[in-house]
Amino acid sequence: MEIQVGIVGAGPAGLMLSHLLHQRGVESVVIDTRTREEIEGTIRAGVLEQSSVDLMTETGVGDRVRRLGMVHEGIELRFGGRGHRIDFADLTGGRGVTVYPQHEVLKDLIAKRLADGGDIRFGVSDVQVEGITGDAPTIRFTQDGVEQELTCGLVAGCDGSRTMTRFLIPAPKPRQDHFRQYPFAWFGILAEAPPSSDELIYAHHRNGFALISTRSATVQRHYLQVDPNDTVEDWSDDRIWQELHTRVEGAQIKEGPIFSKSVLHFRSFVCEPMQYGRLFLSGDAAHTVPPTGAKGMNLAIADVHVLSRAMARFFAESDRTALDAYTATALPRVWRAQHFSWWMTSMLHRMPEASGFDHNRQLAELDTVTRSRAGRTLLAENYVGTPFD
Amino acid sequence: MEIQVGIVGAGPAGLMLSHLLHQRGVESVVIDTRTREEIEGTIRAGVLEQSSVDLMTETGVGDRVRRLGMVHEGIELRFGGRGHRIDFADLTGGRGVTVYPQHEVLKDLIAKRLADGGDIRFGVSDVQVEGITGDAPTIRFTQDGVEQELTCGLVAGCDGSRTMTRFLIPAPKPRQDHFRQYPFAWFGILAEAPPSSDELIYAHHRNGFALISTRSATVQRHYLQVDPNDTVEDWSDDRIWQELHTRVEGAQIKEGPIFSKSVLHFRSFVCEPMQYGRLFLSGDAAHTVPPTGAKGMNLAIADVHVLSRAMARFFAESDRTALDAYTATALPRVWRAQHFSWWMTSMLHRMPEASGFDHNRQLAELDTVTRSRAGRTLLAENYVGTPFD
Repeated sequence: MEIQVGIVGAGPAGLMLSHLLHQRGVESVVIDTRTREEIEGTIRAGVLEQSSVDLMTETGVGDRVRRLGMVHEGIELRFGGRGHRIDFADLTGGRGVTVYPQHEVLKDLIAKRLADGGDIRFGVSDVQVEGITGDAPTIRFTQDGVEQELTCGLVAGCDGSRTMTRFLIPAPKPRQDHFRQYPFAWFGILAEAPPSSDELIYAHHRNGFALISTRSATVQRHYLQVDPNDTVEDWSDDRIWQELHTRVEGAQIKEGPIFSKSVLHFRSFVCEPMQYGRLFLSGDAAHTVPPTGAKGMNLAIADVHVLSRAMARFFAESDRTALDAYTATALPRVWRAQHFSWWMTSMLHRMPEASGFDHNRQLAELDTVTRSRAGRTLLAENYVGTPFD
Repeated sequence: MEIQVGIVGAGPAGLMLSHLLHQRGVESVVIDTRTREEIEGTIRAGVLEQSSVDLMTETGVGDRVRRLGMVHEGIELRFGGRGHRIDFADLTGGRGVTVYPQHEVLKDLIAKRLADGGDIRFGVSDVQVEGITGDAPTIRFTQDGVEQELTCGLVAGCDGSRTMTRFLIPAPKPRQDHFRQYPFAWFGILAEAPPSSDELIYAHHRNGFALISTRSATVQRHYLQVDPNDTVEDWSDDRIWQELHTRVEGAQIKEGPIFSKSVLHFRSFVCEPMQYGRLFLSGDAAHTVPPTGAKGMNLAIADVHVLSRAMARFFAESDRTALDAYTATALPRVWRAQHFSWWMTSMLHRMPEASGFDHNRQLAELDTVTRSRAGRTLLAENYVGTPFD
């Protein structure tokens, strides 16, 4: 089978790319080794930037996010026992973020693609991509026991942080992988309880960072910075609530039955370039961010916004200029998101080797940022996200 | 001899304190082990915040700084071969900094104190401070071979980074010393050359940081980040100019005979509390900052602005409230200045262990800060300095 774009991975990057390409008259096939149920049922990120919601709305997949998503017009930074609101709406001219789980975005995109006659192959196996430096790369895979082959004009590697497509770019030249590890993890819980706060609370405490967030009126999602070697068994319910009360000092944390516990290890990663021959990487396949900045899903959407435009121009005008410039166009936003995520992480977390100087400097940084309108604005405009180009 | 305030150290903190106390009707004696010639001839810091100049002007020691100081309404951050101006005047409502050497400030203060009948003892030796937890601390010293004793109402420790007064506060309780070392040094030169730029240039480069600054129309002061083990002998004139051209990429650096070379080691330091009994520390005796943020002399002035007010209230109304609150009042500004100095340092210097990720994140931070008005404003308002309380 011949197709203009073969897309490996039905996550936010792959599905949104397929959707945007369709809008621009370019047809694609999306394949994923996971089943539709797995994809639509896995809880991941949950914060959409203003520009992400705008793009979904403009392209006809924004109905549910606007109806069911919770618009947050601010967050709270809490330190020294006091809360300091970052008022997004006031600081950024009415922009905000929308809390809407990633798997709901995926449901919306899958439904829309299928309604538009899109071709998504779930639960495939034995995926092999070949010939990306030639004119007609192929994607081979097995579906329902039958071997299939796609001959593609272009290939998009959207297969997430466990990507195999990234490794098709030879390293160390041209591919450079930039990693940063963090000496801590997040312990995440889901609890049946009413919200403790209307907005997310990012809490700095001598014991470590804590994040109060919400999934719905009855389900809450909270996180604690923990040692990366900690396991779920190390944290009893009592210990979790005790630690949340301690770290989110001065706020009223509402308890309830905890029905999920997990340890999230996180790191920063950027692959450069994001393309090779006829292969183009988008989203987590090319870069991962720590969750502190709430940027993961948004970077995937920003990537494919750029990539879909460049691919459409390639097919419509046989002009490779925009495609060739894909990395140069998309990467600055990626690095700024990496910086923002690192900034939020380093400002709010306790480093294991932190001295008294480091602790006090961190508090002074939080003081500097929150007391100044410019400081709050810098944080707010990066959190809600700069407009897409 | 009895005196209201005995001041150890005739640097910016000690002399400005003596001057401000006199304005408020409190008399003091200032002692220093250095001669007047040494004090007036040693080249140190050179940047005054707007509030420092304003305070000098309001209290009658601002004539020369306003006549001879060079007002800078911005700086340039240079990275990736391009300059990005931080326009202080535009971003902070007309505020700026004044480049005016510290020893000129000291000349102005000494002249004014002597004209006002002030008592400054230069070139003393064998300084001993005793009884700071009692009601009448004493300062003993030898002057011209004669032993002298001051019986003081209060004592100010303004004896700089080589302070002895700080050690009169027992450690580790209540005194905590917070240090941070940096894994690099600055190589500073003075050259006979015309200015390379009207404003300071802070340059980020893969080889390390460089700073282009000026002392006058004919004398320039430039710095290079170097290994802390480097010595003056390691850097020939040719190597210095070559490295400046490389690091300050895209700017025109004007060469000329180098007549001074030195290696500056720098660190961050804060002593907490800044007081004990009847002893009060101000300026470098209590805290030192790396020079990147140009905050050293200004923190000394901010400290004694707070301290002189509290001391005057103590003598006028026998009210210790403001004195007791000195540390709590002065320290937040100190920590914010520490943060700002650390921020400028960490954003612009190459860390020896920096990875490709770190280098690119730094460039993304510079991009984030310079492309956003909020980012430029946050930098500008901290550089020109927040108003004194």
